[in-house]
Amino acid sequence: MAQLRIAMAQVNPTVGDLDGNCRIVLDHARRAHEAGAHLAVFPELVVTGYPVEDLALRNSFVSASVKAVAALAERLADEGLGELPVAVGYLSRRVGVGERYGQPAGTPQNAFALLHCGRVEVGSAKHHLPNYGVFDEARHFVPGETLPVVRLHGVDVAFAVCEDLWQGGGPVAAARRARAGLLVTVNASPYERDKDNVRLELCQRRAREIGAAVGYVNMSGGQDELIFDGDSLIVDAEGELVARAPKFEEDLFVTDLALPAADGGVPPSEGPGEAVDGVRVVRHLLSGEPAEPYAPAPPVLTPRADPASDVGEVYRALVVGVRDYARKNGFGSVAVALSGGIDSALTTTVAVDALGADRVHVLLLPSRYSSEHSVSDAEELVKRQGVTSRTVAIAPIVAAFEEGLTLEGLAAENLQARVRGTLLMGLSNQEGHLVLATGNKSELATGYSTLYGDSVGGFAPIKDCWKTLVWELARWRNAEAERTGAPPPIPENSISKPPSAELRPDQLDTDSLPDYDLLDGLLDAYIGTDKGMRELTTDGYPPDLVERVIRMVDRAEYKRRQYPPGPKISSRNFGRDRRLPITNRWTPRS
Amino acid sequence: MAQLRIAMAQVNPTVGDLDGNCRIVLDHARRAHEAGAHLAVFPELVVTGYPVEDLALRNSFVSASVKAVAALAERLADEGLGELPVAVGYLSRRVGVGERYGQPAGTPQNAFALLHCGRVEVGSAKHHLPNYGVFDEARHFVPGETLPVVRLHGVDVAFAVCEDLWQGGGPVAAARRARAGLLVTVNASPYERDKDNVRLELCQRRAREIGAAVGYVNMSGGQDELIFDGDSLIVDAEGELVARAPKFEEDLFVTDLALPAADGGVPPSEGPGEAVDGVRVVRHLLSGEPAEPYAPAPPVLTPRADPASDVGEVYRALVVGVRDYARKNGFGSVAVALSGGIDSALTTTVAVDALGADRVHVLLLPSRYSSEHSVSDAEELVKRQGVTSRTVAIAPIVAAFEEGLTLEGLAAENLQARVRGTLLMGLSNQEGHLVLATGNKSELATGYSTLYGDSVGGFAPIKDCWKTLVWELARWRNAEAERTGAPPPIPENSISKPPSAELRPDQLDTDSLPDYDLLDGLLDAYIGTDKGMRELTTDGYPPDLVERVIRMVDRAEYKRRQYPPGPKISSRNFGRDRRLPITNRWTPRS
Repeated sequence: MAQLRIAMAQVNPTVGDLDGNCRIVLDHARRAHEAGAHLAVFPELVVTGYPVEDLALRNSFVSASVKAVAALAERLADEGLGELPVAVGYLSRRVGVGERYGQPAGTPQNAFALLHCGRVEVGSAKHHLPNYGVFDEARHFVPGETLPVVRLHGVDVAFAVCEDLWQGGGPVAAARRARAGLLVTVNASPYERDKDNVRLELCQRRAREIGAAVGYVNMSGGQDELIFDGDSLIVDAEGELVARAPKFEEDLFVTDLALPAADGGVPPSEGPGEAVDGVRVVRHLLSGEPAEPYAPAPPVLTPRADPASDVGEVYRALVVGVRDYARKNGFGSVAVALSGGIDSALTTTVAVDALGADRVHVLLLPSRYSSEHSVSDAEELVKRQGVTSRTVAIAPIVAAFEEGLTLEGLAAENLQARVRGTLLMGLSNQEGHLVLATGNKSELATGYSTLYGDSVGGFAPIKDCWKTLVWELARWRNAEAERTGAPPPIPENSISKPPSAELRPDQLDTDSLPDYDLLDGLLDAYIGTDKGMRELTTDGYPPDLVERVIRMVDRAEYKRRQYPPGPKISSRNFGRDRRLPITNRWTPRS
Repeated sequence: MAQLRIAMAQVNPTVGDLDGNCRIVLDHARRAHEAGAHLAVFPELVVTGYPVEDLALRNSFVSASVKAVAALAERLADEGLGELPVAVGYLSRRVGVGERYGQPAGTPQNAFALLHCGRVEVGSAKHHLPNYGVFDEARHFVPGETLPVVRLHGVDVAFAVCEDLWQGGGPVAAARRARAGLLVTVNASPYERDKDNVRLELCQRRAREIGAAVGYVNMSGGQDELIFDGDSLIVDAEGELVARAPKFEEDLFVTDLALPAADGGVPPSEGPGEAVDGVRVVRHLLSGEPAEPYAPAPPVLTPRADPASDVGEVYRALVVGVRDYARKNGFGSVAVALSGGIDSALTTTVAVDALGADRVHVLLLPSRYSSEHSVSDAEELVKRQGVTSRTVAIAPIVAAFEEGLTLEGLAAENLQARVRGTLLMGLSNQEGHLVLATGNKSELATGYSTLYGDSVGGFAPIKDCWKTLVWELARWRNAEAERTGAPPPIPENSISKPPSAELRPDQLDTDSLPDYDLLDGLLDAYIGTDKGMRELTTDGYPPDLVERVIRMVDRAEYKRRQYPPGPKISSRNFGRDRRLPITNRWTPRS
């Protein structure tokens, strides 16, 4: 056996910020060196941030990324870190292939590099390109065709990129053929509820298939709608969990491994040999001899998968999402319209946890239909959390509109929501706050919201949370406060009272929508599992309800497209992964 | 030689409207039968409409499409049209392959069927799946692996789908191998300026490659952002143009062809033979003997490619886009805010040409900064075109807002735009009009607009037109009126005066933006050809201007995502085909 000390850098880069991202790599490489690591591994596309989307198709961006990686290698050497092999993901291009009709322009690749002694020592690229859910990589990249296997302190280490681990064949099969002692994958794998054990089980299965340890290094932090939750881990060749980093945190995690020493002093030279499964093994020699034996340090092994922590994890994902969206877009503060209801109460609380109360500005915008408890519940939250608040009564503004144009019914209801949206945007334009929209997923699904009204804003923290989850999150947050001896931030009355938009007298959500327990179950079954009308009624939902709700969902597509982005916590989603044509005359009948 | 009379049905289906689309096929098949056609050909995915986007991933929708095609075949036979082979595109699924990680769920296919004698006689599917520009087919379909070759009145006719003609290898090569006498492709190819000759030249090149005539049948009409312009055509085996249908019109075009008779009375049986280039030829026999000789009718041969008609064609595309978006979404009328400026004047004129003056409602919304000529130019347009108009002065409403929240500078400017947006949406909600947004592509590119202000609406007719093109279109429309002896619909002053948003005293667009001639050239170079900063300055643009404009474009991404859809007239575009991450810290430096 040979020893290897691996540093997994679970960092949080920003898309397009090449300089800043390279600084992050440099800082963590220095820490890895100080910790005596033999190898530092960073996430997929760490140099550019992930996802680059169509920046991949900009020739000048690809060139800038290639240059940045070369400069990073030199900089590492200049700072005395040249001996430490540093594994990074970056954007590159495939050379030696011509432009072909239908192929991404400029042949960009989701590339991998090992930086060593001032040079880009090893180059390869992601082979399997995911093109489902939030991923569009067949649009943006051409596939890589090599698996690099690097002899490092006598161990053959294979390197692959994210999806290459998920799909069978290709790089996984090549790693087995190459008799690698360790397969390291660099990843940008977004958070989803219950996804962490899926990743662990995948690594365990692959380790047993390949007969080698597997190291999985993931990104952390929020990038637009994606929240990367870290959860980097290492399993041994039997699939036993050896090390596991905490979720969401940006940090460096060092693990000592004992791995099989490779046969022979020098790896067999493999030139441009034949590709099997579309993948060719390319070997590199960094250091043939095992490291001097040393006493291994105990690994980080963060416990996970306590089902009770699920709601708490969602809450944390939302906080990370708001924190990073504000920071990465250059906003120092946020503004929220606080109604006294649960959605705006939870949104405000998430924002306070993300940014601090002094950076959260709320507007209380009572109308002629606002109940007394709405105002008092909102004021109670302001008091408990210490956010800055202002109150503007909207009745005189609504009256001024109605002088110019008489509106009735739904048009009059929407007018009030739009007056609020305009006030909120006015405050934002005047003072520079990021506006947070407060809509939840049940509203987005059914279209129970006002375009350009409650839907205004730059980010929508709870847009992927069903209404029933919104209540759970609020209760969890209050319980967490009590657990730590702090006062509960959310007024109990905001959680317990029946929900209402308060756009007409005595209005309740249940006037227009079924009870949320029933509705959320039905929505989740329709959107998540794609059941047709017959299956949903077989599941026990009344046929007229099924028909009504399905129609609402399909007709709300336009509103959803106009909604601000927000943190994704689920693959049962709209948006990129569920995008209907706006003109869509079809409703499932069976 | 053998004769064949082909009817090309250049129809306009609606996504999801399976019943309505099948009725369109039935009606046109009847007309083809009455015209004595031997074959009727409909566009790609005519049964479901195009693009189906993620409806393809709904199992119940795929099933509904498969059932609809079987029912359509029976219906054709019931109505005495069973002998006429009818070629249609529809959504199907590949059978006999399991679900595989990363493969579209349910293995849907962009399928082709030949309906004959009450049955689905021939089944195949699109092989090359475009996944660039407006296309996302790698997300939604699994590729087909067969090329059907049908002996029809003694001629071997091969059938392929759209992209299969554009990409080399695959079906094109198989058609050549199969010694087909005619290759028919069914298409849903969207309009782009100058694309028609590209299609013609492609058909000519392929015809010469294959040594067979090529028939190209395209869709017509608008579907969300896509405008299908028809332009169906036939070239002979030498690449000579034989027939060409008009652009944009939904109609049936019948052409008599003389084609080489196939060798032998019965085609060689080819079972599940080996695939070459991923495509296997599958032969079918409908009728081995040539048709009785008859006197051919002269073909339709619509002249095209008069450069002077380019602007007129764009105008027509916009009209089709507005007409079909309103109709397919169930709107009987539209509402526009008319400012007296050129953008709203052109938008209103397009709407009147699409729907008629009685279905166009305009709002005149003067502010304290509106000039006299703005009001008089808007009133003049109302008079010339006879649209319904209402005037609401926004000053009292703006004053009511400012009582509640003091706003200055840009925040105060945006407030006025948002008051207008709210009035327009109020009118829409009250009376059911589709709101048309009036922004042009130069504004969208630079972010020179107000979120939830002038950007509100359901459809944005001129969002893909640079400001300089907006002027050209207005001049073209007035000239066209004069040519036909009608009064010009657009007041000359709206075209000739310097553009202004009129949100503060004496404001001009040139206060914030360079001259539009300069700006549009720079924007087109940056967005269309993806030139970096160095190339743009080499082209003669001042470096500080290049830097400023590029920053504006990259930072306006969020506003563009929130903008309503509109007809695409160019591949040099934003949206699906140019989608930056919202958090994007990168500006090209070289």
